[in-house]
Amino acid sequence: MLSVKNTICAPVHQPGSAITIIRVTGPDAILACEKIFRAKKRGKLSREKGFSLVFGEIFSGDVVYDEVLLSVFRSPHSYTGEDMVEIACHGSVYIQSAIIRLLINNGVSPARAGEFTQRAFLNGKMDLSQAEAVADLISSESESAHRIAMNQLKGGFSAEISRLRQELLNLVSLLELELDFGEEDVQFADRTQLLSIASTIKEYSDRLTESFSIGNAIKRGIPVAIAGRPNVGKSTILNGLLNEERAIVSEIPGTTRDTIEDTFTLDGVLFRFIDTAGIRATDDIIENLGIKKTFEKISTASIVILVTEASVSPADIRSEVAAFRKKLQNESTALLVVVNKTDLAAEDDLKGLKQSLEKLYDGLVIYMTAKHAAAYSELKSAISQYSGVAKLDGTAVIVTNSRHYEALKHVSESIGRVLEGLSGSLSSDLIAIDARHAIHFLGEITGEISTDEILGNIFKNFCIGK
Amino acid sequence: MLSVKNTICAPVHQPGSAITIIRVTGPDAILACEKIFRAKKRGKLSREKGFSLVFGEIFSGDVVYDEVLLSVFRSPHSYTGEDMVEIACHGSVYIQSAIIRLLINNGVSPARAGEFTQRAFLNGKMDLSQAEAVADLISSESESAHRIAMNQLKGGFSAEISRLRQELLNLVSLLELELDFGEEDVQFADRTQLLSIASTIKEYSDRLTESFSIGNAIKRGIPVAIAGRPNVGKSTILNGLLNEERAIVSEIPGTTRDTIEDTFTLDGVLFRFIDTAGIRATDDIIENLGIKKTFEKISTASIVILVTEASVSPADIRSEVAAFRKKLQNESTALLVVVNKTDLAAEDDLKGLKQSLEKLYDGLVIYMTAKHAAAYSELKSAISQYSGVAKLDGTAVIVTNSRHYEALKHVSESIGRVLEGLSGSLSSDLIAIDARHAIHFLGEITGEISTDEILGNIFKNFCIGK
Repeated sequence: MLSVKNTICAPVHQPGSAITIIRVTGPDAILACEKIFRAKKRGKLSREKGFSLVFGEIFSGDVVYDEVLLSVFRSPHSYTGEDMVEIACHGSVYIQSAIIRLLINNGVSPARAGEFTQRAFLNGKMDLSQAEAVADLISSESESAHRIAMNQLKGGFSAEISRLRQELLNLVSLLELELDFGEEDVQFADRTQLLSIASTIKEYSDRLTESFSIGNAIKRGIPVAIAGRPNVGKSTILNGLLNEERAIVSEIPGTTRDTIEDTFTLDGVLFRFIDTAGIRATDDIIENLGIKKTFEKISTASIVILVTEASVSPADIRSEVAAFRKKLQNESTALLVVVNKTDLAAEDDLKGLKQSLEKLYDGLVIYMTAKHAAAYSELKSAISQYSGVAKLDGTAVIVTNSRHYEALKHVSESIGRVLEGLSGSLSSDLIAIDARHAIHFLGEITGEISTDEILGNIFKNFCIGK
Repeated sequence: MLSVKNTICAPVHQPGSAITIIRVTGPDAILACEKIFRAKKRGKLSREKGFSLVFGEIFSGDVVYDEVLLSVFRSPHSYTGEDMVEIACHGSVYIQSAIIRLLINNGVSPARAGEFTQRAFLNGKMDLSQAEAVADLISSESESAHRIAMNQLKGGFSAEISRLRQELLNLVSLLELELDFGEEDVQFADRTQLLSIASTIKEYSDRLTESFSIGNAIKRGIPVAIAGRPNVGKSTILNGLLNEERAIVSEIPGTTRDTIEDTFTLDGVLFRFIDTAGIRATDDIIENLGIKKTFEKISTASIVILVTEASVSPADIRSEVAAFRKKLQNESTALLVVVNKTDLAAEDDLKGLKQSLEKLYDGLVIYMTAKHAAAYSELKSAISQYSGVAKLDGTAVIVTNSRHYEALKHVSESIGRVLEGLSGSLSSDLIAIDARHAIHFLGEITGEISTDEILGNIFKNFCIGK
């Protein structure tokens, strides 16, 4: 365990905002701040109760560094569980550095990345998966990513893991009951019953493990690619999907997002266009199927939108789709065919095209005129449908963290061996070892079992000040 | 005057920090927040006193958007002077947008840039020059820039302006006393006394106006250029001046500064190397004096460091310096000659060089070995001395704002005309008009006289959320 006896500080923001907050936590947080702060209308800082706001100046000798607002928290009622002060100062590089220097001169140490949240964990304010949810919450860019992180922060995921762990503990108790009477060579527990319990646990941990692929996609954005021959309208469709989102975002003040470049959300799920020449310059992909690199890139997409035109014959569309599908190196990639420029086709021709494609192509085909802004609803609902996210229950627990995923894989493997052991009439003590392994890995997720190395790895990815 | 009846909100930070603050100010600030917030352990938000911190959740229907910390302020004890709530939420794009959307749905409008400070001004919490100091304080990068901004924020500059204005008002009263008895054609006020008062005022406003050039340099950083023949050690000197600063800055956690690239501070004053090829590639400047563009650039510097070597003869150094000085297009540029590589010269030769340069060159010459880290103290104190800032009194009022500078120039001009009028025995009513002009321009600085246009121009340069 790491020592939490010292007092640490860090700025929460990079300089450049109007206001920046410097956090100070630890046993001397309030006293250290008292030495560099004088209130405008109130007494000593050390007399302030928790959850107080105090206005005043940061000073040293004759120099006043800034007029600031202090938030005072008393242990255990703070983010870290320790005494804590948040100094809201003007967001100047000079002021921020000066205040941190003054704190350091008064015995406060600079905080490492994630050290505030790490202390919250060490002081029992949250378990490890909740601490990790803090980082996820900060980086959440869509409703679904946010919902998963929020559920995890509020302990939903931890509750599921605890439940799983409790069931495993019950299983082990039953096995160990046998061990206690081992010499009498009796099987106390009904092995059929044990098998049934273990199967249920494995099923559940498998389901959680499997949810990682969708969870990860939700967190990072589901990768989408657009392909097709030159001039079929790929850029128009790309912009059509992106622009509305841009408009929505720019409506909200202060939320200019550079990262929005090539992403859009549908029903609260983030989709991300695969970047580089792979998409923007796929003009000659169909004509020149030899461009292997581009195809490798496209194959990393979960959904590929293949664009063609209403003027192409049904037979040509089918062979185009077939050739494309053959080149796609990932069988799980969903292929969505868009027949563009329907406005240029005669009504009867279009009808004929639809009929013949209905018979001869088994995937989903969208007919649209990409230059009409109103034409995107069908395409969007198809993308949403193909993403697989729509099928998810809103309250389902989903694994988004690769550390949890690895741990759950170990759980599934261990329970798999428990199942084998139970079926093969292995002795209870050997089965119990595997069951205890599974319990260990579940404990790693919530932090009931943790090492400095695990903690170090988790918190080093946090930002400074969190 | 602008209406301040509505309630507005804006994020104080760009997304990407661990925590972001959303400010809400206006008559409905607390009620609007109450509709989207539930406290964890306390009652209704509208029952909270000013300067309260409340922990709870932002919600809408069944959805919890975030766990947040609210700071509640009651009019007039807030930054804006209005009821105000600061929502500290997790710094995710999604969460920030969601909270702002919820506020907007509850009748709150998005704030314009600087609108919070503008309201503080309109509600009498600060005058215009103090409001402008807020922006200066946020952008201050050095001790001296910070000191000037802090003095201005705390009302030091406003006090000087008020004093000047009061003296002018007294002058006008004396003049108008004459006007009241105008028909009797008597000069009540002693014109000699009036002249003396007006001279004092003009002297003072001239001094303030003149302080702008140094004030502006302090605010933006004093421009420095390094020039010299190839391989005399220009880069080594540049890095020697920059590196120490970089090391100091990187010592302080979280204060990584991209802008530090080519700046350094000496005695709390920011110096800024003039960028582009002008400095880094001035290798052939001396050999090829035809590079006019580079020289134009170098001539914008307040201080030029001309580097040469100890192996060069005194005569050559003198002619090099003379040729360089001739090309410098700005006479106020201070030229500092550095004789580098003293370690390569024999002791006697160096002594001879120093003696002959002492007699034959009137400027300051620094002898150093640039590759030795210890060699910079003399160069630094020379730079500091040449900057002219060292001579400044620490408590002197300095004009850093171009709007104030323009207003003060008008004041000086008007008082100039008052002086002329008094000397030329112009009639009191005409002199009073000029004096009233001067009073008007002083009022513009503090905002006693302001138009929507002036206010708009000032506050549009603020960041959102301030």
